Amino acid sequence: MPLNDLIRRTRQGQPRAIARLITRIENGAAAAEIIPRIYAATGRAHVIGVTGAPGSGKSSLVNELAKALRRRDYKVGIVAVDPSSPFTGGALLGDRVRMQDLSGDKGIFIRSLASRGNLGGLSEATAAVVKVLDAAGFDTILVETVGAGQAEVSIASAAHTTLVIEAPGMGDDVQSIKAGILEIADVLVVNKADRPGAARTVRSLKMMLQLGQAMPVNHHGRSLQTTAVSPNGMENDNFWQTPVLETVAIDGTGIEALLDVVLAHKAHLQATDGWLKQEKIRSRREVEQLLHARFMEQFQTAVSQNDREQLITAIANRETDPYTAVAAIFAQINE
Amino acid sequence: MPLNDLIRRTRQGQPRAIARLITRIENGAAAAEIIPRIYAATGRAHVIGVTGAPGSGKSSLVNELAKALRRRDYKVGIVAVDPSSPFTGGALLGDRVRMQDLSGDKGIFIRSLASRGNLGGLSEATAAVVKVLDAAGFDTILVETVGAGQAEVSIASAAHTTLVIEAPGMGDDVQSIKAGILEIADVLVVNKADRPGAARTVRSLKMMLQLGQAMPVNHHGRSLQTTAVSPNGMENDNFWQTPVLETVAIDGTGIEALLDVVLAHKAHLQATDGWLKQEKIRSRREVEQLLHARFMEQFQTAVSQNDREQLITAIANRETDPYTAVAAIFAQINE
Repeated sequence: MPLNDLIRRTRQGQPRAIARLITRIENGAAAAEIIPRIYAATGRAHVIGVTGAPGSGKSSLVNELAKALRRRDYKVGIVAVDPSSPFTGGALLGDRVRMQDLSGDKGIFIRSLASRGNLGGLSEATAAVVKVLDAAGFDTILVETVGAGQAEVSIASAAHTTLVIEAPGMGDDVQSIKAGILEIADVLVVNKADRPGAARTVRSLKMMLQLGQAMPVNHHGRSLQTTAVSPNGMENDNFWQTPVLETVAIDGTGIEALLDVVLAHKAHLQATDGWLKQEKIRSRREVEQLLHARFMEQFQTAVSQNDREQLITAIANRETDPYTAVAAIFAQINE
Repeated sequence: MPLNDLIRRTRQGQPRAIARLITRIENGAAAAEIIPRIYAATGRAHVIGVTGAPGSGKSSLVNELAKALRRRDYKVGIVAVDPSSPFTGGALLGDRVRMQDLSGDKGIFIRSLASRGNLGGLSEATAAVVKVLDAAGFDTILVETVGAGQAEVSIASAAHTTLVIEAPGMGDDVQSIKAGILEIADVLVVNKADRPGAARTVRSLKMMLQLGQAMPVNHHGRSLQTTAVSPNGMENDNFWQTPVLETVAIDGTGIEALLDVVLAHKAHLQATDGWLKQEKIRSRREVEQLLHARFMEQFQTAVSQNDREQLITAIANRETDPYTAVAAIFAQINE
């Protein structure tokens, strides 16, 4: 099908057209052709990132959130991103469970993306798929990442609202919430809250949030305040108090309350300048990622495969060093 | 002190000079001045990356490995890298325990590096610090990363030998070894092996390694074979059989056996072309990271702060899109 038709049908929300457009994005550089033609139609959807430690029950939670959103008549897109290796199969397994649970509902569109060994490409593809679903009219897009490392955090936090999921008893309390994960949370969820140790995990998280108060703004430019009081002691509506909620996704406990909080965060962003701020953060990140990708293409065009291999070998053999080599490459690209 | 003196004293292995040189690297762009002057003196040290899930007991294991190496008269450098936020304090806590345990031994040098919110910078700094310790005459350099995400994996795997540490009962077995971590392991360690479930964790890991056999070579260019038999069924000395070892770091159980295996891997690399291959992988990665950093500097010079902010705002407001904007930036840089 010609791209124009695919885009037109995607804009009408036709599931098969959406799926085919996403496949084109997955298969290569098509995003550069597609995104400029749909971008003006994006910006309406509420993008929710969901990340957290392995074993925290993220997938079940995302499913239940999607069902709760459907009960309130929101159209829901789910993008499950797996930055890990293609052969672990976790995402596929989760998908099958998901399909049984959610299929047959035209108000839900589900897609998995795997890394195929290229994290930059995955991040770019995820951003593009979110835009396709946005332009296709989905009100809410849930971006779930499988792991809990910096990469997953980075993908999930390119969202308006970021949920970080924990579960009780996952190793040492302090360690499990490391890796920059706390700073990006707009909402913290302790899932599997019927398990022993849930209260302790909630306490630990609240304590960590309070420690975070010492630094008023995190590196994503968001407030880390846990109270609605600004650093100068004045009440300030611009601060979002990161709440800690308890859920048991497999029986639905706490899901409606969680959704209330998620929608309250959306309302908070819209009432303050938070929504535009988040759009700017996302725009900046996308520009940087695309710049990097384009630059690497330029480098690979300017310096032949053979020259590159010779340079790498010379560095490995200590005939030159990486800094001197890079200076020489830059001279070559810019000449 | 002039840089020349610092470098001369570092080459002589003087601890205070090494510490000051590393501080200069941490504080800015000094690596570009320092590395070209010491690079020819590097390449001798065996660099061991240690990564794994939070709560696996990595720090204790690294300490015990360092002590075991000292008993065999190796000089040991330890670089503890924390890509997570600066205020979690985990690395500092670990350091204090470590100092009590290992201080007073001139054959050990310990340094922590934190991210300060810039992962690329951290990765570059880690690579530079490893080179400083290499040039200072340390035989073995242990690079420990605190988390277990893609970022940590990427830093730790810029090593000759990569250890991945697991512990029994850390959530779902399949999930806990996701995030690309298995592919980069030269040695898998189940630490806390006196805990319930250790045998099951060992079995799961061996099963996952066997699944990995379906893909003969991972994206780091290393073999994923678990037997010394190549895909065509012939015996082949170039394949390293990834072993799964059990340790209890806090009482030293299994540490000597682990060190034997680590040194066997080093001997294996030196006997095959594996050592040079790994040097090339590292060189390639460092060149790519430096290229990216230099390119971003070039971008920030070519496009004024004001123009950048206007562009970001225009994208956030859907007046233009990221792809069109990046094409325009490239035209501006290259004009």
